[in-house]
Amino acid sequence: MTGWFFLVLAVGAGSVFLYVAAQRRSRQAGSAPPAENNHIEPGPPPPVPDSDAESFDVWGFNDTKFEVDRTGVVQISGARYELSGHKLPSLFKWFQGVIGIEIDPTDTRPSEYGGRIAPSRAPQSLRDALAERFAAEQVSDDDEQRLRHGHGHTQEEMYAIKFGAIPRIPDLVVWPDDEEQVVELVKIAQRMDACLIPFGGGTNVTDALRCPVDEERPIISVDMRRMNRVLWIDPQNKMACIQSGAVGRHIMEQLAKHGFTMGHEPDSVEFSTLGGWIATHASGMKKNRYGNIEDIVLDFNMVTSGGRIARSGVAPRESVGVDARRYVLGSEGSFGIITQAIVRLFPLPEVQEYGSVLFPSFEQGVGFMYDLAATTDVPASVRLVDNLQFQFGAALKPENGGLGKLLSKLQKFYVLKMLGFEADKMVACTLVFEGGREEVRRQEATVYRIAKEHGGFKAGPENGRRGYQLTFSIAYIRDFVMKHWVLAESFETSMPWDRVLDLCERVKARVNEEHRKRGLPGTPFISCRVTQIYSTGVCVYFYMAFYYKGVENPAHVFCEVERAARAEILAAGGSLSHHHGIGKHRENFLPDIMSPAMLEWNRGAKRAVDPGNLFGASNQGLGRMAEGAVKGSDDA
Amino acid sequence: MTGWFFLVLAVGAGSVFLYVAAQRRSRQAGSAPPAENNHIEPGPPPPVPDSDAESFDVWGFNDTKFEVDRTGVVQISGARYELSGHKLPSLFKWFQGVIGIEIDPTDTRPSEYGGRIAPSRAPQSLRDALAERFAAEQVSDDDEQRLRHGHGHTQEEMYAIKFGAIPRIPDLVVWPDDEEQVVELVKIAQRMDACLIPFGGGTNVTDALRCPVDEERPIISVDMRRMNRVLWIDPQNKMACIQSGAVGRHIMEQLAKHGFTMGHEPDSVEFSTLGGWIATHASGMKKNRYGNIEDIVLDFNMVTSGGRIARSGVAPRESVGVDARRYVLGSEGSFGIITQAIVRLFPLPEVQEYGSVLFPSFEQGVGFMYDLAATTDVPASVRLVDNLQFQFGAALKPENGGLGKLLSKLQKFYVLKMLGFEADKMVACTLVFEGGREEVRRQEATVYRIAKEHGGFKAGPENGRRGYQLTFSIAYIRDFVMKHWVLAESFETSMPWDRVLDLCERVKARVNEEHRKRGLPGTPFISCRVTQIYSTGVCVYFYMAFYYKGVENPAHVFCEVERAARAEILAAGGSLSHHHGIGKHRENFLPDIMSPAMLEWNRGAKRAVDPGNLFGASNQGLGRMAEGAVKGSDDA
Repeated sequence: MTGWFFLVLAVGAGSVFLYVAAQRRSRQAGSAPPAENNHIEPGPPPPVPDSDAESFDVWGFNDTKFEVDRTGVVQISGARYELSGHKLPSLFKWFQGVIGIEIDPTDTRPSEYGGRIAPSRAPQSLRDALAERFAAEQVSDDDEQRLRHGHGHTQEEMYAIKFGAIPRIPDLVVWPDDEEQVVELVKIAQRMDACLIPFGGGTNVTDALRCPVDEERPIISVDMRRMNRVLWIDPQNKMACIQSGAVGRHIMEQLAKHGFTMGHEPDSVEFSTLGGWIATHASGMKKNRYGNIEDIVLDFNMVTSGGRIARSGVAPRESVGVDARRYVLGSEGSFGIITQAIVRLFPLPEVQEYGSVLFPSFEQGVGFMYDLAATTDVPASVRLVDNLQFQFGAALKPENGGLGKLLSKLQKFYVLKMLGFEADKMVACTLVFEGGREEVRRQEATVYRIAKEHGGFKAGPENGRRGYQLTFSIAYIRDFVMKHWVLAESFETSMPWDRVLDLCERVKARVNEEHRKRGLPGTPFISCRVTQIYSTGVCVYFYMAFYYKGVENPAHVFCEVERAARAEILAAGGSLSHHHGIGKHRENFLPDIMSPAMLEWNRGAKRAVDPGNLFGASNQGLGRMAEGAVKGSDDA
Repeated sequence: MTGWFFLVLAVGAGSVFLYVAAQRRSRQAGSAPPAENNHIEPGPPPPVPDSDAESFDVWGFNDTKFEVDRTGVVQISGARYELSGHKLPSLFKWFQGVIGIEIDPTDTRPSEYGGRIAPSRAPQSLRDALAERFAAEQVSDDDEQRLRHGHGHTQEEMYAIKFGAIPRIPDLVVWPDDEEQVVELVKIAQRMDACLIPFGGGTNVTDALRCPVDEERPIISVDMRRMNRVLWIDPQNKMACIQSGAVGRHIMEQLAKHGFTMGHEPDSVEFSTLGGWIATHASGMKKNRYGNIEDIVLDFNMVTSGGRIARSGVAPRESVGVDARRYVLGSEGSFGIITQAIVRLFPLPEVQEYGSVLFPSFEQGVGFMYDLAATTDVPASVRLVDNLQFQFGAALKPENGGLGKLLSKLQKFYVLKMLGFEADKMVACTLVFEGGREEVRRQEATVYRIAKEHGGFKAGPENGRRGYQLTFSIAYIRDFVMKHWVLAESFETSMPWDRVLDLCERVKARVNEEHRKRGLPGTPFISCRVTQIYSTGVCVYFYMAFYYKGVENPAHVFCEVERAARAEILAAGGSLSHHHGIGKHRENFLPDIMSPAMLEWNRGAKRAVDPGNLFGASNQGLGRMAEGAVKGSDDA
């Protein structure tokens, strides 16, 4: 007995000793982040190759356009996108069915782009003053450059530049090299009584770049894209300092070289700039993982008419009283020129996966999204399209033969015949998962579990991936259909969860009613998708289109219908915008959502900060009255 | 053969049939959130019982005070906190050791509180105007009420009310009932040329409530705490609308009754108000899970001199141009009176657990926090105290006998003797985990894995829980030690990760140097903890104290030393404040961190929005110059 006792004691003591020894050894490891910080200073980005030239008269890259042959087969030119170069046999026919018009593919409207460009009003004194500080290549009065800098991508503007005119455009375009030059430019403009309008990617859809028609001062468009550098990357503190004219796709490439991402990926990421994102209070596709712009930007510099807005250091979060920078978010060029920003960085995700789910109805899809939003396993991106957009996605499928076609037919058979989904009711949800392997696995498990509870059918990663890839090529469609006598536009809103279904129905009904009321040809295309989710609600994106041949002042009529849709949105409890912003396009609605004192606060702040209206883009009704700027899209 | 073939086919077809049938059945479930929304409208909160009366001359509830008997044993009166009523035998002695002075527990400084209160200057005309709109109980000129409404909880103010004087205090206190009455009050103040200063919990530590000494107009303190209702709860959209005078502890109780939380828990939550949180850009202990105030608040109403700032609806997120509300965050009463806010709600967590880890050194603890911040498993709260604060926590342990004492000694033996931790180097990390069961389990696994990599020893939930419970009772210590001839204060900052260790060392060294330089008695108590983590950096909280008997103008001297510490913080890359704010206490530093144009922007906005300086608290240098307000703490 005694022997056993001592044996147990010895084993016990020995175990304790070994355990403690192991603990002590493992405790030598680990240390604090090094005090020496190694900032990375990437060089300037590579110059933009000619092959990446952008179109001036339509969206996007010059090498990419939708085309249709005389048999109605659509194809995207070039080789840039996944869909490029493939024949799309179903699209044209499907679309005619939706808008109720037989469209002759050879019947196109000739564009008169560039035909009516107002000459530059820039006086020689201003040109001379600029020449003292800027190199010749940094200043231009070229007609097409000035026209391009005088508009964004609303349908009204895209229509006007081809079939009407833009009555007032910038008189000069200047490309500053650095913050010092921006300060100089502001001084020159003040001295010479010129008006400054900052320009990033020119992708806004709010008429934000439209020059006030009655602006008598020479207008200088300040194109920020020579200020396109990632100035430094701080890997330890996970921050980077980036100039405001850096374009999204270049930012992504440069950060990725060092293993990081900003995580901000709006649909315009190929062209829009960091300064533009700040100025429009932007949102990105993967905000569930990375946050919206207000979560990503830690600090920024801005040049105003009173001088430089700048801070001495950066903090992860601070409380330093009233913060002008918070007020600049969404200011759309009204207060000054943003020159650079410090942003949060995230390590590139370990894993990126796609997914998709089919739901029998939009209602069930929304129910799925509601339950998903209440979990901590929300993927980087979740989008739910309605039936019409689901059909649209199917119509964008390239023709395929053989096994691919057979499998596609089998899946269709299974879903429609076996599961009982209805072809004119079913909807699709696409998902992007990003993160650590375990994290993504968990998100997938949660997503598909909840999807099943709402009648969803898991449709595989390929459909999801396709859905997201389509985003960037679909942007080219609007300009394509415009020459085939169809006007199209997207508009978006946000709302609490309980308003979603009612709002979507009401907007669709209202658009149909407005279309019918005006005796417009055919039927309108009106489709929606839930494109972002929050615990408190969602963002909904609408696409609207209709045939306009034979319609007088069609862009203006389209505007009216869109305005009616927006009124319906507000009445149904939706916001004026989730992320596109206000510009001039929606400024007339501001009194519907803001108390008079709130509007006056904004005007007072503008008067205080920019008393001379140097930054005269005149968005949101700040500065000169904007009535003149929204007229005249069809006026020659 | 043929038989087998048909058998396999039959089994196969049968399986497919059964599978599909099962799929169809399960797909009938699920639906969207109901269109009918059932807002909950809780009644008014229960009246505050007499037992919850707050002290006027010291922090906190009247029933709780630290006391020490002649043998040096400390005890907290009452029964409110976990620590209340227990004998704390080690504290007094330990503290004497740290500050290098033998303190006689019977040697206390008698308070002259209430002895020198400036009479009300409110003219009869103003009183009459108020009497037309407000009930008698809503207006007071009582001396002690006015004094209480004329200060917050900086050491300078707490010293002044007992041993000096506050030269300028409100002339009247008014308690409005609702937003309409606030609008009326603003009109009366404008008509009668009075000055308005909103008041919530009165817990600020920035001199934000100190009245400008040279304010000639009658000053009305607008105490918002009769506007204390949760107006509605929207369980479906996870939002609630709450009046700005609602106090943190009541908000928590009322929301919890319905299964929700706002998640905002600053150390002052027992007393501070929703309006105060917005006005100071507050941060809460569990921001890792729930966000800071800017993440929680979706909308709020405010009454300004120009009228009501209000919005027509609420959205989860929107981009509607310049947003005055974003500018009001952190405005500390400079622009108007916040009346109510819509906030996000979270369901109460399924699970709440505590944890603690001991580290051999502060450096290893910070290394642990850095690696933890890079994961997606960050618990609701993580705090790391330095060695001095760790000792302080130990000194706050009630005496215990028997098994508890034995276990405590065993743990100490193990840690010091077996693991080789050093008593004067070791530090502690306390953690709060909240969330779903799986989620919390995952966070715990990650936390303890990383802790081990940095030499950490898992010290159990009890130490963690104790650490957090201490937070609320520790707040009473400062006023206790003040009468024992010790001045104490906390101050905080935020900084990127790579600045943490250097900044903490430099601040401690600077405080010691300033103390020595002034020939102050004993040695200063200076301790820090990392109290919040972000991917980009941290918040660090400092406690400072020193003996002041025999020191002339001690509160002023303390201020000087604190200011030197702040200068050191800024030089070492820290911010002016993570969450306390600026008030008057730090406004002189604003030019060190903001460019002149940025400061002028703020002043310009103030002039535009409140040209008559109706809201004359004069924080952050907005409104009248604040020089007079920070003088005079020792002047009679």
